[in-house]
Amino acid sequence: MSAIPKDFIRKAVQVSKDITRPFANSRKIYVEGSRQDIRVPMREITLMPTRTDKGIEENPPVTVYDTSGPYSDPHTEIDLLRGLHDVRSNWIEERGDTELLQQPTSGFSRTRQSDPALANLRFEHLRQPRRARSGMNVTQMHYARKGIITPEMEYVAIREDQRLQEFKADSRYAFLLRQHPGQDFGASIPAQITPEFVRNEVARGRAIVPANINHPELEPMIIGRNFRVKINTNIGNSAVASSIEEEVEKMVWSARWGGDTLMDLSTGRNIHETREWILRNAPVPIGTVPIYQALERVNGKAEELTWELFRDTLIEQAEQGVDYFTIHAGVRLQYVPLTANRVTGIVSRGGSIMAKWCLAHHQESFLYTHFDDICEIMQAYDVSFSLGDGLRPGSIADANDAAQFGELETLGELTRRAWQHDCQVMIEGPGHVPMQMIRENMDKQLEDCFEAPFYTLGPLTTDIAPGYDHITSGIGAAQIGWYGTAMLCYVTPKEHLGLPNKADVREGIIAYRLAAHAADLAKGFPGVQIRDNALSKARFEFRWEDQFNLSLDPERAREYHDATMPKQAHKTAHFCSMCGPNFCSMKITQDVRDYAAKHNMSVADALDQGMKEKSQEFLRQGGEIYKAV
Amino acid sequence: MSAIPKDFIRKAVQVSKDITRPFANSRKIYVEGSRQDIRVPMREITLMPTRTDKGIEENPPVTVYDTSGPYSDPHTEIDLLRGLHDVRSNWIEERGDTELLQQPTSGFSRTRQSDPALANLRFEHLRQPRRARSGMNVTQMHYARKGIITPEMEYVAIREDQRLQEFKADSRYAFLLRQHPGQDFGASIPAQITPEFVRNEVARGRAIVPANINHPELEPMIIGRNFRVKINTNIGNSAVASSIEEEVEKMVWSARWGGDTLMDLSTGRNIHETREWILRNAPVPIGTVPIYQALERVNGKAEELTWELFRDTLIEQAEQGVDYFTIHAGVRLQYVPLTANRVTGIVSRGGSIMAKWCLAHHQESFLYTHFDDICEIMQAYDVSFSLGDGLRPGSIADANDAAQFGELETLGELTRRAWQHDCQVMIEGPGHVPMQMIRENMDKQLEDCFEAPFYTLGPLTTDIAPGYDHITSGIGAAQIGWYGTAMLCYVTPKEHLGLPNKADVREGIIAYRLAAHAADLAKGFPGVQIRDNALSKARFEFRWEDQFNLSLDPERAREYHDATMPKQAHKTAHFCSMCGPNFCSMKITQDVRDYAAKHNMSVADALDQGMKEKSQEFLRQGGEIYKAV
Repeated sequence: MSAIPKDFIRKAVQVSKDITRPFANSRKIYVEGSRQDIRVPMREITLMPTRTDKGIEENPPVTVYDTSGPYSDPHTEIDLLRGLHDVRSNWIEERGDTELLQQPTSGFSRTRQSDPALANLRFEHLRQPRRARSGMNVTQMHYARKGIITPEMEYVAIREDQRLQEFKADSRYAFLLRQHPGQDFGASIPAQITPEFVRNEVARGRAIVPANINHPELEPMIIGRNFRVKINTNIGNSAVASSIEEEVEKMVWSARWGGDTLMDLSTGRNIHETREWILRNAPVPIGTVPIYQALERVNGKAEELTWELFRDTLIEQAEQGVDYFTIHAGVRLQYVPLTANRVTGIVSRGGSIMAKWCLAHHQESFLYTHFDDICEIMQAYDVSFSLGDGLRPGSIADANDAAQFGELETLGELTRRAWQHDCQVMIEGPGHVPMQMIRENMDKQLEDCFEAPFYTLGPLTTDIAPGYDHITSGIGAAQIGWYGTAMLCYVTPKEHLGLPNKADVREGIIAYRLAAHAADLAKGFPGVQIRDNALSKARFEFRWEDQFNLSLDPERAREYHDATMPKQAHKTAHFCSMCGPNFCSMKITQDVRDYAAKHNMSVADALDQGMKEKSQEFLRQGGEIYKAV
Repeated sequence: MSAIPKDFIRKAVQVSKDITRPFANSRKIYVEGSRQDIRVPMREITLMPTRTDKGIEENPPVTVYDTSGPYSDPHTEIDLLRGLHDVRSNWIEERGDTELLQQPTSGFSRTRQSDPALANLRFEHLRQPRRARSGMNVTQMHYARKGIITPEMEYVAIREDQRLQEFKADSRYAFLLRQHPGQDFGASIPAQITPEFVRNEVARGRAIVPANINHPELEPMIIGRNFRVKINTNIGNSAVASSIEEEVEKMVWSARWGGDTLMDLSTGRNIHETREWILRNAPVPIGTVPIYQALERVNGKAEELTWELFRDTLIEQAEQGVDYFTIHAGVRLQYVPLTANRVTGIVSRGGSIMAKWCLAHHQESFLYTHFDDICEIMQAYDVSFSLGDGLRPGSIADANDAAQFGELETLGELTRRAWQHDCQVMIEGPGHVPMQMIRENMDKQLEDCFEAPFYTLGPLTTDIAPGYDHITSGIGAAQIGWYGTAMLCYVTPKEHLGLPNKADVREGIIAYRLAAHAADLAKGFPGVQIRDNALSKARFEFRWEDQFNLSLDPERAREYHDATMPKQAHKTAHFCSMCGPNFCSMKITQDVRDYAAKHNMSVADALDQGMKEKSQEFLRQGGEIYKAV
């Protein structure tokens, strides 16, 4: 063995130390399903009690959705060189509709696996690829339509419901359960997420469970507008920078901070090997854009791409375990000239590759003409479609134009065709869109694509803030998530400027996690306000540690507090740096409460009194509403 | 002279070096009005030409709104010890309705000015205070209602219109002028902002020009929903941290990055002296919360506050030149018990002080009972009201509750009373509000307060991301700005955790500048998309330097690009770090255009063709719209 794997081992150990460090006062718990091997991971945050005049009041622990995988479980041994333990192999095997292959179907895979020059880069414990038996369809949608609730579906139901029923059954939680009614724009979120509800949503195509049979390490999750809004992160090396080690590290890092899925957008050398390392260590679904690799294989000459080569690439990646493919089959020849007078033309890489191919051959895209062939591959491994928006706008000026919306209509047509094969589908969306034009994107997508989940990149709401595009797009992402987008593709501060490093990835993820949560609150997803309520109560009661621990980024919150008030005593101080010890609005509010209590003024009385005064005032004004002068 | 002023001089010189550094390829220009002393500052960004096959194509310079004041003008000498040059003294004097006072009216001011122990802290070149002559009203609203267009009004009209008419007259700008129609929720933004339009908006109270006659250094600006959305920044020392030097530096820093107004929220010692330093060096309107200082004068004991002491504080600050006062006169006794069962009670400092006072005396707030007296002070100096939302929600759970909306109705009543005195008024708003409940805030404010400008803090759309509240609130700010809020009070990453440093101030400002710009785009404010279009064109054409220079934070954009591609050659490279030299979607798009040109396919043809195909497709489907399966 040469130096490279050893380097990787050393690096890997460092990575795991950094990444497996649990968050303070958090413990990993597993909620068991109807069978022992359904163990859904969650993070439970323990809180301090509140000290009142009447004594100690316990604050129940808060459970949060956990994307971090086994990395945050101190009882699990992590070995990046071996990959993660299986979660799903039993489930897949017992369905009896798949078979193990002696060797990869893809010629390219076989070449890479037998190339001795790649030994140093290669993941050492390669799995035998699995495929549907002849005539079988192994997609979650297929099972759902046959009325089968798979373990994957039960898993995601438990995950989405996140102990909410348990909360509801415990009177101590009543306070935390207060939640404003949402505005869900016609979604139909139930009070309880059951396995049957999941099955039904998957069957009608309104949600997908991306879960390739060759990715048994996966902890299943669901993407659909009647579920929690998800976020995707992107990583990937390029010809200019980045290495396998860095990409694996970013993947684990992404899962740690809350990335629900991850796309490997590598375009440089060793794409095949990088992907294997990522998949074997990934607890989250992995997506790719297969056309990137196909293009590498023809040395960047788009016009030399062929269906045969592309097909081999799809199979290669499907047998590695990729959970969803971005396929830009909506870039039809007729739409390409519509982009010619745009400010920023075609900004999607996949879109521009296909546009170039179409023009060079003056012929319909092979992705479009071979769409049914693609479906047959997808259903043999349960790879989900992410129908790519190759003609998405790259600037505010180009938003919602004929090219974009023409392509969207074609994506709708392709959705129907994919569903005829029981293939799972989501639809990619823009891009750069000013706020007043976001809603139209969502409405049109729902109508044109029959409620297949929407998966948008931002959108960015202005072009003038490079360096802050996690925020320009976070604004758009929160809104479109509220309107019904099921998954938000994150944007980092480096967007348009450079490749994100670890700090950028963390920054982008938290911006998107908070946008997704804001969207969940706005939609009224059951129970999501618990965390806000618990954090605000901690804030009001000066339980600083609890405030940090309940936040999306406990380490950042603590660090910022330390910057002004570094002493440990300040963490229990009943004041903060903003106002100082003798001048605190929260302290004064406590005085108000004490006063109310002393004067035996119950809240009900107070509310009654307020109403009475209001009503008297109204009568005094002769029952007229104020008019502007 | 002791050591302190010398320290300050040294520090001051450093500050000016750091802050007066102009942005690359930018120059300060002044647009002259109807008289020579109306010189409206703007920043003009020069762009590189585009190189095409047909030769060189010039890119016209883009002019942007400039809040930075004389600090960014290399032709102006900055001396923080002397303060800025006058902008408005002539205008104020020639109106002939004010008089200079021999000494401050406030007893507190006189005490501070004669205290030898404060000599080291005191600004050396104190102005004589100015006040309306007896019986005179010197507010911009008063002039506007009399039909007078003041120089201040003409100044802001030019500033808002920002050379747009000049752009429109030059055919080279046609491309940049493309702008999507806005959705303005009933605002009435004209195609051209004229001085008469400004006068009319100020007269009917729909906009304010905060401009104390004792702040002649001010570069006038306007706050109203038919104008560009503005942002406010907060600074202020506290008992725990910060000093005069730091606060002045933060003020200049805030103006540099785009703060339109600034609130000095100091609560520590030497508030009076700090404020003088800030005002004499501030090109932007300065706001304060006078109750903070009043509370200092009674050693933090809210119940000892009196009207007389508060009155003296108002006059003290009005004669220093504060442009707007936050007055929490809406915290009425009857609303206070309504906060008792909130999750976070009363979080406004001013609100909780007044609540405590009301409860201690069981009596209506003196701010409410003396409101007409306050108006008389305001009109004698033209201090604008910022009617404080002392009962704003401090958590998602408390949003839009009876206490908040009860207070808002009282603020409406007070608006009418202030307008009877021709006093300028804006209304403060929340706070913490989930997205689906933001619109109700705006609609209710417009109705209850008769379209007086709304000035909101965020709102934060979730409580769970301390350390990232510039983003949780930027999401809410962009939305409420779109709906009609005139000014957004910024939030820094340190919100809830600590006092912001310079880096935090910059981060908060840019987050809010981009939110305000996104709102301007969404409302369709004329010409605002020019900057987006110019930047996107630069991006598409790989004019990296222009992309940096057109952005809200050119230094950050450049720094991030350098992180991946540090070489100077990369700044002119026709590729970027994301995809590398041989794989660039923008490059491919250029190929598409070239192809279209070569095949003599005009854009019009292409569009026609697209339409025809669409129409055929429609007919082929029997004219039916797709239905969901």
